[in-house]
Amino acid sequence: MSHNSFGHLFRLTTFGESHGPAIGAVVDGCPPRLTFRREDVQAALDRRRPGQSRFTTQRKEPDEVEILSGVIEAEDGTLTTTGTSIGLMIRNVDQRSKDYSNIAQSYRPGHADFTYDAKYGVRDHRGGGRSSARETACRVAAGAIAQLVIPQVRIRGALVAMGQIEIDRSRWDWEEVGQNPFFCPDRIAAAEMEGYLGGVRKSGSSVGAVIEVVAENVPVGLGAPIYGKLDADLASAMMSINAVKGVEIGAGMAAARLTGEENADEMRAGNERAPRFLSNNAGGVLGGISTGQPVVVRFAVKPTSSILTPRKSIDTEGAEVDVSTKGRHDPCVGIRAVPVGEAMMALVLADHVLRHRGQNG
Amino acid sequence: MSHNSFGHLFRLTTFGESHGPAIGAVVDGCPPRLTFRREDVQAALDRRRPGQSRFTTQRKEPDEVEILSGVIEAEDGTLTTTGTSIGLMIRNVDQRSKDYSNIAQSYRPGHADFTYDAKYGVRDHRGGGRSSARETACRVAAGAIAQLVIPQVRIRGALVAMGQIEIDRSRWDWEEVGQNPFFCPDRIAAAEMEGYLGGVRKSGSSVGAVIEVVAENVPVGLGAPIYGKLDADLASAMMSINAVKGVEIGAGMAAARLTGEENADEMRAGNERAPRFLSNNAGGVLGGISTGQPVVVRFAVKPTSSILTPRKSIDTEGAEVDVSTKGRHDPCVGIRAVPVGEAMMALVLADHVLRHRGQNG
Amino acid sequence: MSHNSFGHLFRLTTFGESHGPAIGAVVDGCPPRLTFRREDVQAALDRRRPGQSRFTTQRKEPDEVEILSGVIEAEDGTLTTTGTSIGLMIRNVDQRSKDYSNIAQSYRPGHADFTYDAKYGVRDHRGGGRSSARETACRVAAGAIAQLVIPQVRIRGALVAMGQIEIDRSRWDWEEVGQNPFFCPDRIAAAEMEGYLGGVRKSGSSVGAVIEVVAENVPVGLGAPIYGKLDADLASAMMSINAVKGVEIGAGMAAARLTGEENADEMRAGNERAPRFLSNNAGGVLGGISTGQPVVVRFAVKPTSSILTPRKSIDTEGAEVDVSTKGRHDPCVGIRAVPVGEAMMALVLADHVLRHRGQNG
Amino acid sequence: MSHNSFGHLFRLTTFGESHGPAIGAVVDGCPPRLTFRREDVQAALDRRRPGQSRFTTQRKEPDEVEILSGVIEAEDGTLTTTGTSIGLMIRNVDQRSKDYSNIAQSYRPGHADFTYDAKYGVRDHRGGGRSSARETACRVAAGAIAQLVIPQVRIRGALVAMGQIEIDRSRWDWEEVGQNPFFCPDRIAAAEMEGYLGGVRKSGSSVGAVIEVVAENVPVGLGAPIYGKLDADLASAMMSINAVKGVEIGAGMAAARLTGEENADEMRAGNERAPRFLSNNAGGVLGGISTGQPVVVRFAVKPTSSILTPRKSIDTEGAEVDVSTKGRHDPCVGIRAVPVGEAMMALVLADHVLRHRGQNG
Repeated sequence: MSHNSFGHLFRLTTFGESHGPAIGAVVDGCPPRLTFRREDVQAALDRRRPGQSRFTTQRKEPDEVEILSGVIEAEDGTLTTTGTSIGLMIRNVDQRSKDYSNIAQSYRPGHADFTYDAKYGVRDHRGGGRSSARETACRVAAGAIAQLVIPQVRIRGALVAMGQIEIDRSRWDWEEVGQNPFFCPDRIAAAEMEGYLGGVRKSGSSVGAVIEVVAENVPVGLGAPIYGKLDADLASAMMSINAVKGVEIGAGMAAARLTGEENADEMRAGNERAPRFLSNNAGGVLGGISTGQPVVVRFAVKPTSSILTPRKSIDTEGAEVDVSTKGRHDPCVGIRAVPVGEAMMALVLADHVLRHRGQNG
Repeated sequence: MSHNSFGHLFRLTTFGESHGPAIGAVVDGCPPRLTFRREDVQAALDRRRPGQSRFTTQRKEPDEVEILSGVIEAEDGTLTTTGTSIGLMIRNVDQRSKDYSNIAQSYRPGHADFTYDAKYGVRDHRGGGRSSARETACRVAAGAIAQLVIPQVRIRGALVAMGQIEIDRSRWDWEEVGQNPFFCPDRIAAAEMEGYLGGVRKSGSSVGAVIEVVAENVPVGLGAPIYGKLDADLASAMMSINAVKGVEIGAGMAAARLTGEENADEMRAGNERAPRFLSNNAGGVLGGISTGQPVVVRFAVKPTSSILTPRKSIDTEGAEVDVSTKGRHDPCVGIRAVPVGEAMMALVLADHVLRHRGQNG
Repeated sequence: MSHNSFGHLFRLTTFGESHGPAIGAVVDGCPPRLTFRREDVQAALDRRRPGQSRFTTQRKEPDEVEILSGVIEAEDGTLTTTGTSIGLMIRNVDQRSKDYSNIAQSYRPGHADFTYDAKYGVRDHRGGGRSSARETACRVAAGAIAQLVIPQVRIRGALVAMGQIEIDRSRWDWEEVGQNPFFCPDRIAAAEMEGYLGGVRKSGSSVGAVIEVVAENVPVGLGAPIYGKLDADLASAMMSINAVKGVEIGAGMAAARLTGEENADEMRAGNERAPRFLSNNAGGVLGGISTGQPVVVRFAVKPTSSILTPRKSIDTEGAEVDVSTKGRHDPCVGIRAVPVGEAMMALVLADHVLRHRGQNG
Repeated sequence: MSHNSFGHLFRLTTFGESHGPAIGAVVDGCPPRLTFRREDVQAALDRRRPGQSRFTTQRKEPDEVEILSGVIEAEDGTLTTTGTSIGLMIRNVDQRSKDYSNIAQSYRPGHADFTYDAKYGVRDHRGGGRSSARETACRVAAGAIAQLVIPQVRIRGALVAMGQIEIDRSRWDWEEVGQNPFFCPDRIAAAEMEGYLGGVRKSGSSVGAVIEVVAENVPVGLGAPIYGKLDADLASAMMSINAVKGVEIGAGMAAARLTGEENADEMRAGNERAPRFLSNNAGGVLGGISTGQPVVVRFAVKPTSSILTPRKSIDTEGAEVDVSTKGRHDPCVGIRAVPVGEAMMALVLADHVLRHRGQNG
């Protein structure tokens, strides 16, 4: 029932505001005797870090992770988990509070300024405080540890739509994802996005995106019906990411337009009594339980509301004002959501591997 | 961490299979001194009950709810909650197991037959066992009690698409929802659906649907960032309903195609320092916290895989077979998901009202 | 965070008042493919059932358990768990509400009448309502299922003190426990108790008791430090039983009077690198983790406050009154706490077996 | 279900080993707009800190707490909680690992060395790793924040027995508690303890202790029956403290020896329909719910097993060895458990205030 915790047996608890001294996470329930290096976690963080291209915020954060507990360090730097809680901390270093002074007095449309004030009666306005996407760095660090629990599972994310531009799935190439600043698997769409997003950025506007995360080699049997279904937990995981407004599994919203004949994934004989599925509209989940097919999740990230164009709003006294956001911002926050979505997938799967093992041995 | 529980402070635990002696629920954490009548819960169940039109399964279940605990009954039948756990039970009466004998030996495509077997090594195949939509009756009964916690909140659901037919939102009329067998708010679309679904039914096929649930008069401030966000819990709630493959809040997946200017809901001065929003792309949730606007959730229900057309599958020994479903079935299971979606909305909101009150007084 | 749930992976949720239609339980997270018979659960309930000697309340409750879900029944009555939630229900049949009419208006000293009213503003006074020891029948039924998860573990309870009478541990004989109405392992003390408690009963008084529960063959490694320590969960489990005021592990409160030399259990070489302990002051738990030695828990049950002697109290209006309890009552409620303590031990151990397996494989 | 979390609405998660870089805590669910200063938390830590007299370990730890999140700092240093998770960190500075080198290869009797190895297959042996009492510093820091939630409640702890020496309750003087190095409320007993413990220390032995924690002005109505009873949560809280082997509420284990006449606390008319109790055998809890009387908890702390006298044990290979502990150690670890017990009381009460408010408004 912890507001800032995610998961059950493999459990993440995070803390920290955008402009406080540090953000951090506690990873609880991690199995013992898993080995990794600090650099592995750092590498995951580096993929998410802003400031790597002109298409993400220029805030400079080295995002150096410190591992405070839960591991034994060998002389060569290898870390071995001990089964106790793993404390992670990332110091905030680029805290230019002056950029955000106007937020203190007025509510940015599309942001959580008003709702935090309404809920808590107090708000850390600097850089969005707790509602800042900066919190997602903790997810990425924890996701790197979650991945250790499921070494055979391959999790990859990609940006499949940006604003009006959608990829052509026939051109999907995972190799391409690392070759452009958008995590886009379609080289031609990526080129189009480059010009498009450059224009968006120059005009001080922003656009949304759709991210797809695919997990391969997921064991069959993960998911705990009825209220711990794998897809329900994935939906919660992805919807908890900043700015996400929709989540789909497999065929997703389009499943509503299909007939039963089209939708049900037929089966043929596979290995060891398991079926070989002829399609994957289910997105790898039936009845809340993984089928052994790739688990496929998509989510929509809304465009950031931090834009140059003045927008109608009110201030904290209730008076009407116009608000525009100057200074650095992300023209498409969806880009950086790709590694975050991968991390959430890893966290959900690691938790369900442990939960399944707990009940079913 | 209970597999069969939903919610935290207001918490539902369910049990029961389609063809066992009974299904039931325990509602825990309900505030004391709320009053209702058994008939109120029964009325909610009656809305969901199958067999009410030719478009839902003809399984005859009176679905009579028995309230076993947690209330004091006055002589006039008024029930007052005592703050202790409320036990609810519904006996199963129409258990024609013979209809389902073939399911025991083979896996129906699109159903959870294979995954339950793979996860548990054993399966109650009769009527889908635990994975049957019958479990949702417990949600509806509990939702009726959850509604007592939030008397000022008005929750209504509607079917907004069936197969290829979408409603025209300019014709939305809540009064219409009760006037057709589809919970459809658009009279003209409903008429079209009637003919369409009749054909689907006769051909032994099935279609999917999109359901929209709207909660009005939701207090501002509900939702517990970061991992108990209102929208994340709604996503989990709706995705946990049988056959749901996608969940959207407000603009949903379409938010990805909007610009920041289009998406952010502008504000003008409202009452008591609260804003009046000029649009509701946020679906009533910003930063995981309710804004006071209507909370709008949509979800897609896939077409049932119980169809007459033979489909390729395997049996429990791994051999290839063809499977078709004879006998009664729902041509559009999405219809009966409307009251279930309403119930899940009530459960989420009731839980968050208590959680918010707990932390914030 | 469920008020009426106990455990995490193996989880019990109960409902029901003393004088409502029924009490019941949902057992969630039970591993699949365990086999038992309804009679096994019934036998556990029968051990706890009142009315079996003149030393327990004469309330006649057959306490027939109905198993509503979570199992598949074979033709010979064998039940196999399916991994889904197991619903259990026991109808209340002996509801002589007239016996309790005076409780509605005044607060019995030592009972929860005042606190329930103060907390909830409403109270089901009949037979103590939810605070009645009747709820413990659900624990016993669930404990019988928990025992299936840990078949190698032998759990036995005994009454080791009644009022001023303590057993002589040198005479401890487990066989004796089933030979007297007190679950007392010391034949000579049992004989003494018989005369003593007869006098207590005739005078309308009551006495307390100390119960000891021992679990043998507990696997080493159970318990989840820091806040899910095995002993902490046992303490919570036993303290949650009605009328319990103290819980001890191993040497218990007496550990305070020992020196480090006396207290620490020395070790000699045992099998497979595991130690053979030379004593068991630890009660089988070190650092919150089981050692492989017998887990030993003791708890004190206060005397029931339902006595003939008038006691000073107030009524619901705050006026001073005298209260005495007429009619049937238990002169020593601790007796019936023995099977309840055994059940709680089983529930804690089963949960920790699954938790340990989840994290550690 | 988090192994390293305590509480539900007000929730503590801790991390850190004795000899790692840092220990820390996340306090989640804290109500917003509470004000305090870093010095308040530091003062609580200073009460617990070792090295303050010759009767506690000479390990030098400044135990400086850093507050990383969840608060807004005013220019004068006043911190205001924002309702988001509060990150706390304490760097470890006195890590003389060489003192503990022998622990790596053998199991100290009475310590968790063997059980951690058996459970996890790996162990941070330095200073006891995660099982070190050092973790309790996190509890004390979090307890200081919990106290902010219940400003009207006064929580005080005292050492009431050390080894064979018990206090005379007729001499109880809370003022005395701060005047001796034992938190002892009986001046004469404290003097006796000084000589006694000096001898124990010199001989390299150790003794146990009994701690009593009293909370006054606790609101009536706290506690969530059946499985979130206030006394059950207190029992779990205290039993989770290192080396605790028994927990008592009110009359505690002695309740078993009382008659119903002696035990039940009689009531006379008090203020506003609430009773004035004539005694407090209940320890302020009836039916798991607070009565408004002082909540009284006692717990026994075993003597530390770190003693000079060689004790029989085995090494990690299973071979028989003798173990003795050289260097600094606490002759009576119970002394430092006093502020820890106070902190756990605060954590339990703060959680239950929020839980009660959540359900009951």
